[in-house]
Amino acid sequence: MAFNKKQKTAAEYVEAILRGDRILLGRAITLVESKKAEHQKLAQEIIEKCLPRSGNSIRIGITGSPGVGKSSFIETFGTYLIEKQKRRPAVLAIDPSSQVSRGSILGDKMRMEKLSTNDHAFIRPSPAGTSLGGVAAKTRETMLLCEAAGFDTILIETVGVGQSEVAVHGMVDFFLLLLLPGAGDELQGIKRGIVEMADLIAINKADGERTALAKSARKDYAQALHLFPPKESGWTPKAVTCSALQKDGIENIWKLILDFQKQINESGWFKNNRQQQAKNWFYDLLEQGLKRLFFTKKEIAEKLQSVENEVLEGRLAASKAANGLLELFTNKPPF
Amino acid sequence: MAFNKKQKTAAEYVEAILRGDRILLGRAITLVESKKAEHQKLAQEIIEKCLPRSGNSIRIGITGSPGVGKSSFIETFGTYLIEKQKRRPAVLAIDPSSQVSRGSILGDKMRMEKLSTNDHAFIRPSPAGTSLGGVAAKTRETMLLCEAAGFDTILIETVGVGQSEVAVHGMVDFFLLLLLPGAGDELQGIKRGIVEMADLIAINKADGERTALAKSARKDYAQALHLFPPKESGWTPKAVTCSALQKDGIENIWKLILDFQKQINESGWFKNNRQQQAKNWFYDLLEQGLKRLFFTKKEIAEKLQSVENEVLEGRLAASKAANGLLELFTNKPPF
Repeated sequence: MAFNKKQKTAAEYVEAILRGDRILLGRAITLVESKKAEHQKLAQEIIEKCLPRSGNSIRIGITGSPGVGKSSFIETFGTYLIEKQKRRPAVLAIDPSSQVSRGSILGDKMRMEKLSTNDHAFIRPSPAGTSLGGVAAKTRETMLLCEAAGFDTILIETVGVGQSEVAVHGMVDFFLLLLLPGAGDELQGIKRGIVEMADLIAINKADGERTALAKSARKDYAQALHLFPPKESGWTPKAVTCSALQKDGIENIWKLILDFQKQINESGWFKNNRQQQAKNWFYDLLEQGLKRLFFTKKEIAEKLQSVENEVLEGRLAASKAANGLLELFTNKPPF
Repeated sequence: MAFNKKQKTAAEYVEAILRGDRILLGRAITLVESKKAEHQKLAQEIIEKCLPRSGNSIRIGITGSPGVGKSSFIETFGTYLIEKQKRRPAVLAIDPSSQVSRGSILGDKMRMEKLSTNDHAFIRPSPAGTSLGGVAAKTRETMLLCEAAGFDTILIETVGVGQSEVAVHGMVDFFLLLLLPGAGDELQGIKRGIVEMADLIAINKADGERTALAKSARKDYAQALHLFPPKESGWTPKAVTCSALQKDGIENIWKLILDFQKQINESGWFKNNRQQQAKNWFYDLLEQGLKRLFFTKKEIAEKLQSVENEVLEGRLAASKAANGLLELFTNKPPF
């Protein structure tokens, strides 16, 4: 990352973010995503100072297979939120497989043409990264900065095919699953576990010839949802139809999200869940950090492959191998 | 653990284990299960020396809900293996919930009356422990010692309701799921993921009035198994009926296990899978060891709770909290 000007201080970033400066918000996120030690240090300072002003939002995870129309849904939904509800949505994404660079911001802006040019919205594509844990951590920190900048509706988009839903589920209040009419779960590549996480299933593209199919799919899913064990939040998941294209059913989805929010605020689950998520995140970061310390230590990195080979070939017991490396790590016997 | 006599050396233990001394095998396992540093050190030496003589067995995981008759199945199956196949079975167990002491060895011996008094069998209950990882590691090491002592058929029993199946699946060659006739998966508390891991489903208690029900359950499961994705091993899972009580279908199960063994030996999957399991175990142990080093370090243990509270209350960002503790751990900044 190259700055044209002298690097700003953390305080300057924070001041700008708190008054909603989108340029500096974007730059702060770039610091969060940077791998350079000096950028990380600055990013951590900014996050720390923004923390007391973060959290004041509803965090919504949105998932669904490629082709279900996530981008056009978010375009329509986000525009509705701004125009009819005076909300300020920030759209983030988690997609560990994407090796996006600055170029794909353009890609995202083209996918959400209207939203991306709206002053009340903020769109940021998935950070580049190889590990889901790394990508998810950056999205989480980005979310905090967006909240501090006054974005009150966080939409976190992910692709409905893998582990990334679990990561998103671990950082949002509400989980929305988009499905297509007339295609079974298997065809859509949606795992049962993902359906089980949903607070709301929306059958998208319920327009034209697909309307009847969508209605019957909605009914099937509504029934299936009843078979799952009750949610910890106390919320009963719903199934609805919508059409991002026709802007149908969008208001109803927002109404259900507000119902959800009201219910979990009253029950205390909102606060409990946010606390539990922060705690889990803290322990995840500890674990990731520990592993990074261990596997990047020179003495470990040099020996790891040969030790692994000895284990593979049965010449060294796994326990002795592990203990030997742990001893090398701490310069102390592990017992 | 109290020894009546002077503690033996690792070499003495190994010599005794290799000539099949069951008393010293049992004592060596007690060392493996001990939490004392000196016992762990001795246990690791014994395992290391036994390693070249281990591995020469077929490792079979056996799971099923309470009430399915696992103990009587193992009693009948183990006795059949000794009497008809001249095998030497060792029966181990993984049950993280059980806080067994020496007392429950008696319990297990009573459950498997005939097998426990047979000189060609060795029975060891689940080690005590709070974490599944800890219990599983000890069972794995116990398995190596049993193999070195000449036990050529390792039966690892677990309760079919939780994560312990995944641990068992990660240390065996063949995975046998016992089910009851006439009860759906849901009723039996068996998760779909567990059915998917099975190489063989045996509908037990296929005797008397239940015979017809068992046959129809067998047919249903045989069909269901075809819907799962093909196994990495290349093996097509089967469904059979058996009666431990009537000693029906036991020979057929053994025959299928031998078919499996032949097929995976020829394809090379047997060796590959064992290597992969050893590698995974090695990395599991590294991770467990790292966490133990971290969380038991005095400076960390003293601060952890207050840091966690600050994160919970939103006064400290998770990333700053984690980095602070990591710094404390290494006495170096984490970047």
